[in-house]
Amino acid sequence: MRIDIITVLPELMASPFSGSIMKRAVDKGLVEVHFHNLRDYSSNNYKQVDDYQFGGGAGMVLMIEPIDKCISQLKEQRSYDEVIYMTPDGKCLDQSMANELSLKGNLIILCGHYKGVDQRVRDHFVTKEISIGDYVLSGGELGAAVLCDAVIRLIPGVLSNETSALTDSFQDDMLAPPIYTRPAEYKGWKVPDILLSGNTPKIEAWREQEALRNTEEKRPDLLDE
Amino acid sequence: MRIDIITVLPELMASPFSGSIMKRAVDKGLVEVHFHNLRDYSSNNYKQVDDYQFGGGAGMVLMIEPIDKCISQLKEQRSYDEVIYMTPDGKCLDQSMANELSLKGNLIILCGHYKGVDQRVRDHFVTKEISIGDYVLSGGELGAAVLCDAVIRLIPGVLSNETSALTDSFQDDMLAPPIYTRPAEYKGWKVPDILLSGNTPKIEAWREQEALRNTEEKRPDLLDE
Repeated sequence: MRIDIITVLPELMASPFSGSIMKRAVDKGLVEVHFHNLRDYSSNNYKQVDDYQFGGGAGMVLMIEPIDKCISQLKEQRSYDEVIYMTPDGKCLDQSMANELSLKGNLIILCGHYKGVDQRVRDHFVTKEISIGDYVLSGGELGAAVLCDAVIRLIPGVLSNETSALTDSFQDDMLAPPIYTRPAEYKGWKVPDILLSGNTPKIEAWREQEALRNTEEKRPDLLDE
Repeated sequence: MRIDIITVLPELMASPFSGSIMKRAVDKGLVEVHFHNLRDYSSNNYKQVDDYQFGGGAGMVLMIEPIDKCISQLKEQRSYDEVIYMTPDGKCLDQSMANELSLKGNLIILCGHYKGVDQRVRDHFVTKEISIGDYVLSGGELGAAVLCDAVIRLIPGVLSNETSALTDSFQDDMLAPPIYTRPAEYKGWKVPDILLSGNTPKIEAWREQEALRNTEEKRPDLLDE
């Protein structure tokens, strides 16, 4: 998989990709991630990429021309499965969308910033609009990093133990059961006896029951689907 | 506001805080953000903070002791409004939760990593469990950065123009209307005439209508609430 991220603030995005799972995936050659500074595609000497909105109002808007230039240049080099725009009014990211995107070949991710991008970018270049949740962020950069993390960790071979991702919350529309590690007792707070029993079938049954209880309590909506 | 973030991978979190709105908020003295490396609170020479889960299964679990030590040390120095744990089975972050948290004084944010934290941490130390969405990430670090961004930008004085946050999506349970900037025509694609009319009341009416249309089309659930 190859991911090209277009942003006005590539420096905001460096560290989430410089460690942990995403770095490991890149190091293993399982994914390439490239950042493109939108200012490099500006057509004027001030490297301007935003302007006031037509009709008045607070907040700057990213202009269509530099975005068009950057996307066109990328598309000349290879074909892309999706041009994704990160926006709070996009389709909400969930685990099934992450699963689906993890099977794609090449993705462009466009990060909005300030008030967002000119609507014509969305109408003519973007193929998928994704939100990471019902809240507003300063820009699409963190959203893009979240999307990359959610997707990249699902690419086969990225996690050292593949079963680790399969037992995560949401993979079977259930939340995860509680987990414990040593010490077995801490300040009088004990680990449930069953987990220390060594009886694997009973432990599995307990975990399923706890996962169900967790889901019923916290997220009954997941069970209705 | 003061935010203390506890993580095993503080280096993952540096760049989102080193630019844009969050840096500006810190520079203006409107918020302090401190990172605490959980390994500094390990009780053994290997700086170990995680261990295998009781009962078997893939993935490591963050141990209770270093987390207890770190939180206790912070609490000795000041009182905290919330000890937040970032987890996919927490309460889903939305704009009203962000608004509410932006009014708090001191927050601790604990980032899970690997399979998560020992359940006893959640039972005894955590006061609020927050998810940023229905998907699994490699750790709580990006979630914590997202939470901080959503909250910090709402602190009065952080955004240079306060109306900018008030007209964002979700602040009135509506998505934002489309926005446009120069040029008025690009490759034959035109900005709606109304936005070039200079007629402010008509522009406002158009924006309200477009915001409603956007919301009805993409997120009718927001209108039902």
